[in-house]
Amino acid sequence: MTGFDQATAVVPLGDGSYHVRLDDNWQIAGKLNGGYILALLGRAVVESAGNDFEHPLAASCHYLRPPEFGAAVIKIEILRVGRSTHQARASLYQHEKLCVEALITTGTLSGEVFWDSVTAPQIPAITDCVLLTTEGPGFTVPLMAVVSERLDPNCLGWAAGKPSGRGLLQGWIEFADGRLVDPLGLLVLVDALPPASFDLGIGGWTPTLELTCHIRAVPAPGPLMVRQQARHVAGGWMDEVCDIWDSTGRLVATGHQLAGIRLPR
Amino acid sequence: MTGFDQATAVVPLGDGSYHVRLDDNWQIAGKLNGGYILALLGRAVVESAGNDFEHPLAASCHYLRPPEFGAAVIKIEILRVGRSTHQARASLYQHEKLCVEALITTGTLSGEVFWDSVTAPQIPAITDCVLLTTEGPGFTVPLMAVVSERLDPNCLGWAAGKPSGRGLLQGWIEFADGRLVDPLGLLVLVDALPPASFDLGIGGWTPTLELTCHIRAVPAPGPLMVRQQARHVAGGWMDEVCDIWDSTGRLVATGHQLAGIRLPR
Repeated sequence: MTGFDQATAVVPLGDGSYHVRLDDNWQIAGKLNGGYILALLGRAVVESAGNDFEHPLAASCHYLRPPEFGAAVIKIEILRVGRSTHQARASLYQHEKLCVEALITTGTLSGEVFWDSVTAPQIPAITDCVLLTTEGPGFTVPLMAVVSERLDPNCLGWAAGKPSGRGLLQGWIEFADGRLVDPLGLLVLVDALPPASFDLGIGGWTPTLELTCHIRAVPAPGPLMVRQQARHVAGGWMDEVCDIWDSTGRLVATGHQLAGIRLPR
Repeated sequence: MTGFDQATAVVPLGDGSYHVRLDDNWQIAGKLNGGYILALLGRAVVESAGNDFEHPLAASCHYLRPPEFGAAVIKIEILRVGRSTHQARASLYQHEKLCVEALITTGTLSGEVFWDSVTAPQIPAITDCVLLTTEGPGFTVPLMAVVSERLDPNCLGWAAGKPSGRGLLQGWIEFADGRLVDPLGLLVLVDALPPASFDLGIGGWTPTLELTCHIRAVPAPGPLMVRQQARHVAGGWMDEVCDIWDSTGRLVATGHQLAGIRLPR
């Protein structure tokens, strides 16, 4: 088992409940990554839905309270089983408190691209990009030991106190242990980059309030291209979009989130 | 009471349940508009949350089965009440079947724009735009009698068989009876334009699977600017984003959806 498979293992308890262990590798500064929690919920839904619905298509997640590392329970409520889609509610409980809830539609990804306006960005060769380490600006990021992120050096001015002001981070992303990225893995990777607000000169944590992922294709093997763009920062909230393309240049996932942000005075 | 207030009235039944009447004005070709259903769910959440949480901030909706016009019941489950946000699950039942479920976070909108990359588009003056009627291409659109949409004529080539291929519709939008658009009203308007796929030469209905709205500000009075852009069409699904700006040019809402689409052979 790879790190990701181990960290997202779900053990059926009957009645649509699953035991899970929240793995402290998938954290940033003491808080579990929101995409990791969504991938766990996604795996429980896929397990309960069966082979005809093996891929998450759309997953919408609201974060209520950050769970701690360790044991937790996921409850799945099947809302509808259709011909081509399976729709479920997935709720993560810890110490009998609801921490995270998601609505997840699963199905089977297939089909060609008919039309696309979200074309892959120009990113320097992976060997010319900068590998992020677990040492963040003033805190540790254990997530960087399990997810390998090599960012375009033109997006990293903020690390030297010179943000570009574009609110843009881009680069290459993959699992650090080489595990193939499948649709469940994409649920983590759309929320794994540093906040795009770093490139606006706003440091600090941006806790996700709501994250919706659309998974568009099973990625071809190889490192993935990723671009995270801040759209709008106002009234204590940031709207941020993350797109991921596979090695053939096909869009495979989009994550769109509303996150809390503390503005500089 | 305006048409919108009447159509989204919720009558408390106790225990977090509300009686609603699904109003056949808010339909397209016999199917209720997804944004209208989300606004109904949003109103029930706001009613149950109280004055400190009067605005929807993030609302994520999965559509299971299309409800019919007429009586239905909304059930609200409060998931968490925080200092600044209130989080709830809202479920629409008809004939005891779950039709639509949403996760909705409410709060109070306030604060200035700190940074923005989603600036208002250049749209011809409202008097130079084309008012959409209830006569759609091969079907009727009663929604156009309650929502007034004046589209940029440069986006309407598809109506004459000449789509531009940009997957883009833009123009002006407001309630037809002049009711002020508030945050609940925005939940309808982010899903009220014709599908952007019309501008790709793909006719026909695009049923929403999942719709997430971020409401960013209380709109200033006056007609709103709207832009709907197809992002990606592949494997039977379209990813589509709709942004709305108020008369001062401020972004007030974003809707992002995954919708089913039948591709031409």
